[in-house]
Amino acid sequence: MNIHHIGIAVQDLEQAARPYFELGYTLEAQGTVESQGVEVWMLKSGHSRLELLKATRPDSAIARFIEKRGPGLHHIALATPDIAAELQRLAAIGTPLIDAAPRSGFAGHQVAFIHPKWSGGVLVELVEVHA
Amino acid sequence: MNIHHIGIAVQDLEQAARPYFELGYTLEAQGTVESQGVEVWMLKSGHSRLELLKATRPDSAIARFIEKRGPGLHHIALATPDIAAELQRLAAIGTPLIDAAPRSGFAGHQVAFIHPKWSGGVLVELVEVHA
Repeated sequence: MNIHHIGIAVQDLEQAARPYFELGYTLEAQGTVESQGVEVWMLKSGHSRLELLKATRPDSAIARFIEKRGPGLHHIALATPDIAAELQRLAAIGTPLIDAAPRSGFAGHQVAFIHPKWSGGVLVELVEVHA
Repeated sequence: MNIHHIGIAVQDLEQAARPYFELGYTLEAQGTVESQGVEVWMLKSGHSRLELLKATRPDSAIARFIEKRGPGLHHIALATPDIAAELQRLAAIGTPLIDAAPRSGFAGHQVAFIHPKWSGGVLVELVEVHA
């Protein structure tokens, strides 16, 4: 699976984006995912995307992450053409899924997270992307 | 700049690789970078690479990272066609470089790290890659 984006927990979107702009990234999209309590800036360069994530409320997962570990790398998101089938396949082999069924993520993508205990402390997101 | 790879600090290479093999990654290369005290497994899927990093001695940066934060996402590496020119450009605008000059990294690549204080807690590596 190709990497769709790398998620980065930030405290200030503009300030966090500045070094990546300097390295050639541009702002591809921005928005809010209310259910997750995050404001998102998606940066792009070539086929690479960085998803800057800022908490919109103190109980969001990003706020708790920053409180515990500080801002920085948060997750990797892998692209799959059929997320429901992939989740079913992973569940069948006992993969600990945070989201057993896909849910709506940023920009209308269907997404699901796998528990980081499965992947050595790395939070892995699946994103349905149609070629 | 495209993402060349994502660096992941691990305690056991085989065990850490297992979930990524399950997600379609294969072992592209393996080796040791003595100067950094790391053993590396480079995994690949499509144009995505994951660099699994295991410390070979207790004073390596990876050993210290794991001691402090546990295993997990360690850095992102961005590909540049001319790392010396890029470092010169970044230094000229006051970027805090860990490596002011390129050095030999995994698989003979010329690499350099930028201090994470520049990039909101994210450790960024530059890797010279010729198209």
